[in-house]
Amino acid sequence: MLSGNLGEVSLLPAVEDDYGGVIVEVTDPMDPGDFSSSLRASLSLWRHQNKKGVWIKLPIQYSNLVHSVVQEGFWYHHAEPTYIMLVYWIPSTKHTLPINATHRVGVGAFVMNDNKEILVVQEKTGKFRGSGVWKLPTGVVDQGEDLSAGAIREVKEETGIDAEFLEVLAFRQSHRTFFDKSDLFFVCLLRPISFDISVQESEIEAARVDLFLCQWMPIDEYMAQSVMSKQNLMKYISDVGLAKFEKGYNGFTPVGVGSVFSDRKSYLYLNSKDLNQAPES
Amino acid sequence: MLSGNLGEVSLLPAVEDDYGGVIVEVTDPMDPGDFSSSLRASLSLWRHQNKKGVWIKLPIQYSNLVHSVVQEGFWYHHAEPTYIMLVYWIPSTKHTLPINATHRVGVGAFVMNDNKEILVVQEKTGKFRGSGVWKLPTGVVDQGEDLSAGAIREVKEETGIDAEFLEVLAFRQSHRTFFDKSDLFFVCLLRPISFDISVQESEIEAARVDLFLCQWMPIDEYMAQSVMSKQNLMKYISDVGLAKFEKGYNGFTPVGVGSVFSDRKSYLYLNSKDLNQAPES
Repeated sequence: MLSGNLGEVSLLPAVEDDYGGVIVEVTDPMDPGDFSSSLRASLSLWRHQNKKGVWIKLPIQYSNLVHSVVQEGFWYHHAEPTYIMLVYWIPSTKHTLPINATHRVGVGAFVMNDNKEILVVQEKTGKFRGSGVWKLPTGVVDQGEDLSAGAIREVKEETGIDAEFLEVLAFRQSHRTFFDKSDLFFVCLLRPISFDISVQESEIEAARVDLFLCQWMPIDEYMAQSVMSKQNLMKYISDVGLAKFEKGYNGFTPVGVGSVFSDRKSYLYLNSKDLNQAPES
Repeated sequence: MLSGNLGEVSLLPAVEDDYGGVIVEVTDPMDPGDFSSSLRASLSLWRHQNKKGVWIKLPIQYSNLVHSVVQEGFWYHHAEPTYIMLVYWIPSTKHTLPINATHRVGVGAFVMNDNKEILVVQEKTGKFRGSGVWKLPTGVVDQGEDLSAGAIREVKEETGIDAEFLEVLAFRQSHRTFFDKSDLFFVCLLRPISFDISVQESEIEAARVDLFLCQWMPIDEYMAQSVMSKQNLMKYISDVGLAKFEKGYNGFTPVGVGSVFSDRKSYLYLNSKDLNQAPES
């Protein structure tokens, strides 16, 4: 911790980061004027110490200090419901601070039973509301959630069906889908384990109960929807799903990978079948 | 636009979103007290109109208004360098607002020439600094950048080599890589178009000039690095790259897809070879 007094003005408590910078996390209320004085004195010290990036994490209960920080030349780096992170770059060179998260991750689930019926839903909100279009169950993965787990969860929440994740059939990257942010949408193949459509109210958020109609729909009927000729994304997704069953289409399956830098396991998705086949002669 | 006056207090100009909510973008300076009054009057109206989510986008130059918005019960949704987005949910039910961006997107480039030499770099910062490990060129895609374009750009910046994007060989999802955020890392196959390694200083940011050493390295030598036995991610990536050349491994190639909802084109990445083959008989 770098902390102390400079004359009458107290310095802000800071911890050093791995990149020559400092991080301040405000944990107590302060008068905005006193805070500004402390911040100026602290910046002076950090400049003298050749520090680079300065991060200030302000919990939302101290939103009255945001303006003081901005007035010292800081800009917003990112925000979450409970805090905002502001940042400043001391050197005169162009900053090398990491960028904020840029993408949300969505999943769509292609789930077909042995009768060649596909699990579909109708949404009561969103772009397809009122259109009568039957579509794959889709959703956004939660913070920290594996996309495979997100696909299983969304299917369960929207339809009550238990399913096993098999592979990623395709994915789409699109931009400016939500303000300036981008989107990665993964089309996942899941194998149904249960078959009775019965959404348990206790298992899903109350707000979602009335958002969905769902059914097992013959794949031919699904493909014959007129929307398929207007939305080539939906057409491609259906074609890929069918190719899985009819042509042995290979998507990407997950394998666990580790790192010497971290205990955390993550998943690499790859074409396992092609990787494990014998070399071409 | 919903706008107007309610007695003496002016209402905030707002546009409706697709989900029963409203979006306010502050574009002119306002006195914080006046702003609070307008916001309260507007919330009253929106409540009466059964609106759901209320979004307020505050450019950073109006950081003096952040506190006023928070005091009315709003919380932070996300922030970018130039603005903060705050949000409020009017109904008494649990909110169904979309989550913030959760992922950063990285790319690694597998680039091999006809002599079975692979394009590799050594980083002078980051986790592998000082280790002597030769690795694929990698980087983070910019906001709004297609991952294929990001891979081409990173190869050019780090090595001076021009290359053409061919396909995504594999991808990894990992969590808590940067604060609470997650990461999606795409391993891309690129075909080199130029072969002379010569990083043009004018083409890259000054700060990056001295970060990289690069060379064409025989693939056998690359694979023989001791790090391969410790980092199974690196081993998998090399195996997949080699499988492309030795076994006809299929990754995902991009196809353009459109939407009736948007003029913007985006790319769906899928196993084109499997999709386009004849059905199994």
